[in-house]
Amino acid sequence: MTYCAAISVSAGIVFCSDSRTNAGMDQVSTYSKMFKFESAPDRKFTVLAAGNLATTQATLAQLKKDIRQNADINLHSVATIGEAADYIGAVSRSQQEKHGNEGKEFEASFILGGQIEGSHHRIVMIYPEGNHITSSKDTPYLQIGESKYGKPILDRIITLDTSLETAALSALVSMDSTMRSNLTVGPPIEMLIYQADTFILDNYHRFEEDDEYLRELKKSWDSRLKEAFHQLPPLAWAQNWKKIADGNNGVY
Amino acid sequence: MTYCAAISVSAGIVFCSDSRTNAGMDQVSTYSKMFKFESAPDRKFTVLAAGNLATTQATLAQLKKDIRQNADINLHSVATIGEAADYIGAVSRSQQEKHGNEGKEFEASFILGGQIEGSHHRIVMIYPEGNHITSSKDTPYLQIGESKYGKPILDRIITLDTSLETAALSALVSMDSTMRSNLTVGPPIEMLIYQADTFILDNYHRFEEDDEYLRELKKSWDSRLKEAFHQLPPLAWAQNWKKIADGNNGVY
Repeated sequence: MTYCAAISVSAGIVFCSDSRTNAGMDQVSTYSKMFKFESAPDRKFTVLAAGNLATTQATLAQLKKDIRQNADINLHSVATIGEAADYIGAVSRSQQEKHGNEGKEFEASFILGGQIEGSHHRIVMIYPEGNHITSSKDTPYLQIGESKYGKPILDRIITLDTSLETAALSALVSMDSTMRSNLTVGPPIEMLIYQADTFILDNYHRFEEDDEYLRELKKSWDSRLKEAFHQLPPLAWAQNWKKIADGNNGVY
Repeated sequence: MTYCAAISVSAGIVFCSDSRTNAGMDQVSTYSKMFKFESAPDRKFTVLAAGNLATTQATLAQLKKDIRQNADINLHSVATIGEAADYIGAVSRSQQEKHGNEGKEFEASFILGGQIEGSHHRIVMIYPEGNHITSSKDTPYLQIGESKYGKPILDRIITLDTSLETAALSALVSMDSTMRSNLTVGPPIEMLIYQADTFILDNYHRFEEDDEYLRELKKSWDSRLKEAFHQLPPLAWAQNWKKIADGNNGVY
């Protein structure tokens, strides 16, 4: 599996993705799931991909080929992020249909984020069926892949006013919770921070498995979470029960 | 949907379940998903149920009927928790097959926990297919329903040596994270604590929607989690990046 998240706050966008790909438990490899499209000066896109590796690779290859061949519709010709999402959805569907007609095994999902000159930055999630949704004021993030383990922390921390640093940190914590609970999501972790209106995709970092900061973050979050847990108000009812049990000296 | 968890530590078992049942967004009702079997003096069982409501109700009705009619195999006649799980799995399958042959819409899962005299207390999870798994030293808990949101906290807190109070608290926090991220899981929350070797199922509590402790716990966990988050080591790389961005005075 895969876990990718994109957070769109007022200050810009944070992209975060893992790199573990598996086809069965003994075929585990490392593939980047983050792709930058930055050659056009008036627009910058980042794509995150989850699902069948053949489909995501074929889709990305087609996106690049369409730019190179200056196809009627390509990422350099679309007028809006929404149009770009429609286009990626159509490419993804046609790649899925090429190889499978029944079942879901070739499905893929994408997150597209970026900015086109004259418009605000934006993120959209593209479903395997080709349709898409965007983030909102109340839910300023999108996830694909193994999204549930890492959702609670995003729900608690992220608002539109969250700074890019805090958004980046919450994405890493969300990733850490996911890796803790699901073996099929793993490092290297890639992260890209896009500052709104800069049209530069340089703020990229790849955290390797032995990355010192990542290890420190993991350890620190684990101990602080336990600390937070042990400071919670005691369960009054269980306390009473314990007293009764103790009073009855084991008979209870 | 549903979220149920059972935690089996050395000191006993904690059962926790929500009570929201929905068939579509506008048909939301409250049904208990926790069932006690305590009439036999030499054995006490608790069953948690998730999935199709008709299947779980029919299965529970059959379990009770089999005891009443003293059927060849019933919860009072089985020799082990494993046998009880086999029996519940068979009843669940036959109920599913009665109404559907194709598709998965009538599926149900169960957690069975308890103790039979002469054996240790134990928990098992029964799949819709009727087979089952038990908990282990490394993973001393089982979940059914919407299990992913609430898994990270259990992974971090629970070991075999965890006290029943702490296990109960972690179950509530796990439930809180799930309710925060998924609308289809909701109060009342039921909790039952079984102290090993007591053969008494009296330590039961039902937290209503407006329960003061639950509200306090929710608030406290939310603020402590945010506190913990904001104490994490700053993202050195993003900090450096910020300095560069500031230094370039917006040009970047």
